[in-house]
Amino acid sequence: MKHGFFDMISREAFERLLLGFPRLGTEAVSLYDASGRILAEPLVAEHDWPLTDRSCMDGFAVNARDAFGASESNPAYLECVAELSVEEEPVITLDRGECARISTGGSLPAGADAVVMVEHTLSMEGGTVEIHKAAAPGLNVMRRGEDARAGATALEAGTPLRAQEVGMAAALGFETLSVGLRPRVGILSTGDELVPVADTPRPGQVRDVNSSALAAMSETCGASSTCYGITPDDLDSLTEALKRSVAENDVTLLSGGSSIGVRDYTVAAIEALPESSLLAHGVAISPGKPAILGRVGDRAVLGLPGQVASAQVVMAVLVQPFLRHLQGHAAAYERAGWACVHAEMARNVASKQGREDYVRVRLEEREGMPPLAHPVLGKSGLLRTMLRAEGLAVIPADAEGLYKDALIKILTI
Amino acid sequence: MKHGFFDMISREAFERLLLGFPRLGTEAVSLYDASGRILAEPLVAEHDWPLTDRSCMDGFAVNARDAFGASESNPAYLECVAELSVEEEPVITLDRGECARISTGGSLPAGADAVVMVEHTLSMEGGTVEIHKAAAPGLNVMRRGEDARAGATALEAGTPLRAQEVGMAAALGFETLSVGLRPRVGILSTGDELVPVADTPRPGQVRDVNSSALAAMSETCGASSTCYGITPDDLDSLTEALKRSVAENDVTLLSGGSSIGVRDYTVAAIEALPESSLLAHGVAISPGKPAILGRVGDRAVLGLPGQVASAQVVMAVLVQPFLRHLQGHAAAYERAGWACVHAEMARNVASKQGREDYVRVRLEEREGMPPLAHPVLGKSGLLRTMLRAEGLAVIPADAEGLYKDALIKILTI
Repeated sequence: MKHGFFDMISREAFERLLLGFPRLGTEAVSLYDASGRILAEPLVAEHDWPLTDRSCMDGFAVNARDAFGASESNPAYLECVAELSVEEEPVITLDRGECARISTGGSLPAGADAVVMVEHTLSMEGGTVEIHKAAAPGLNVMRRGEDARAGATALEAGTPLRAQEVGMAAALGFETLSVGLRPRVGILSTGDELVPVADTPRPGQVRDVNSSALAAMSETCGASSTCYGITPDDLDSLTEALKRSVAENDVTLLSGGSSIGVRDYTVAAIEALPESSLLAHGVAISPGKPAILGRVGDRAVLGLPGQVASAQVVMAVLVQPFLRHLQGHAAAYERAGWACVHAEMARNVASKQGREDYVRVRLEEREGMPPLAHPVLGKSGLLRTMLRAEGLAVIPADAEGLYKDALIKILTI
Repeated sequence: MKHGFFDMISREAFERLLLGFPRLGTEAVSLYDASGRILAEPLVAEHDWPLTDRSCMDGFAVNARDAFGASESNPAYLECVAELSVEEEPVITLDRGECARISTGGSLPAGADAVVMVEHTLSMEGGTVEIHKAAAPGLNVMRRGEDARAGATALEAGTPLRAQEVGMAAALGFETLSVGLRPRVGILSTGDELVPVADTPRPGQVRDVNSSALAAMSETCGASSTCYGITPDDLDSLTEALKRSVAENDVTLLSGGSSIGVRDYTVAAIEALPESSLLAHGVAISPGKPAILGRVGDRAVLGLPGQVASAQVVMAVLVQPFLRHLQGHAAAYERAGWACVHAEMARNVASKQGREDYVRVRLEEREGMPPLAHPVLGKSGLLRTMLRAEGLAVIPADAEGLYKDALIKILTI
């Protein structure tokens, strides 16, 4: 394989290679620790939810036909035959002309199919209730099984668990959930000009920015991370460090200079390990084109550009979805879910054809119109462009650029 | 104070009351644990960043005037006088007509102000280099201080820390950062119909959904949470449980039935504690209007509706921003930052004037147009509506509804 920039593959091809890595195993976690994880097995309801027809309001359970056409000027009169407790199943059956006092959450008695809010009634002496508002069947009622049906799948495997899904699992009685394991991410930096954050750099030296930034981006999508520090820029040291990280992690991120020398060492170090293969050497995105992908056994090694903005773009576009894929996310590379969909470009931006460009943008809010996306220009070795940016706008590989006023999709960062 | 629905205040007034709670203290955390936290003190750069003028490319450092107008057909010829190491400060000074080999990240020597990429050069025998492309001052150079200036504030207090901000802190040598303390959130459920998740509910009973869902929503924005389980629906038990949670937490969330009875107990329990006051009793949003806000000393007690969707809307709209405020977020209630700005309503939705409506919507992607927002209708006691929803669309209090095709802002959930 040649080691130039000419082996570049498309972003889609790079994604397919990443999707070829097997998903990690699963583990059982408490419901209270499940948020942010990916459900590994379908959640099948053992019973209907709600268990019974339940009232959404404080009021009177009625047979809707008895309150049909009722109004302030033409009320219906019903006999209140019971005051139902919220926590017990009603044992009564309503006959026509009867109603029962019910609280929010209470189960409807047999014979009732609607609830009239207490605000629309007047209780009279002797148990008669004036109904001031018409009722239709189902009014103010949550029906049995409306949320989940016994025996049916309530949540699919591969679903990311938000508070809503956690609540559904609670309703169905699942105290523990099977979720995808957190990927373990090992992070190596290489480059003779790098010094640890604690050191004072001499002119010519720079502090290691990527280790902490890549760790943060990994953990944001559910991974755990271990930073191995700065590895000297020679083949033996790099091979040794890579070997250790691959043994201890599912994914190794190696960020180094984007110079040809470091890239060659990275490739050679991957190839020096047993059961290894180099899968990709360059991807047609900008910034980020020097990205390298290798496989050692079942484990992934990604060589990221050393330039900080480039490394972060590769993380957001390729690696973060990969970490979700490893956890079993059903649609890890689905771009439909990108936050902040559609903004208007504030000005023309040119692009080279044949590669996808990720333009850092900041967003200007406007009343009643999509926000304006202002390109944040600057060298990809600077931190400033990513700091000032709120998102990435994509220029497709087959486009010559984006025109002012074009509606674009934004990946928030 | 009356205990009806008629004490409702506006969402803005409720927010102002929440903003009246003092921010929590601060703690120092490692750079590697800082992502997702809120910076408590401004980060002032001790030195310029970059430290020196640095090259973004592998190539030749030149004086731009020497390569002015250079092209393939009319190359400039320069004398290469040095091969610069990336990690050392160059000691040479370029004279006119001279250039030096430089790597990505290397510091420019005195006399150089631009870098010509190696791809646009041809090295000839005897040290002469053909330059095939014109250079302007600053070409392929990151300038000293372009990211941060010595003595200037690089990151403001109140900034949420993403990977980018963590990277900037690393570049400036901060191994630990001062961040706002995580709010401790205590979660109580009340209602005689509730049973723990592990139990099998009889008809009429329901499992406690809110505890786990509210815990998940609290932790999503940096809080830690403790669930105290289900408290019996009487004043003494509620007062005792509230007292304990307030002693142990910064914020107590109490979700109960939205019935008048439970609301009265909540209010009475708050008022039974020393140094307490009831700040709000009802907020003009739907769903969510029965929300209650109390203060016990410096600590907040929020009574949330028992209906699961209502409770989650109040969390997303009012409580999650509050938890960020307590951590020192500079713009916790700023709606400009809402993700997924602007979608088009798929159909008309009516609304009552005088309250803000939060319509649960799912989003349908369309090519080159803003997504369509489909209202997810259903009772707010059901889980389904929040599960199917990807966001909340706001109907302002002074509007009668949203028209089909209207561009709206979405709060993703």
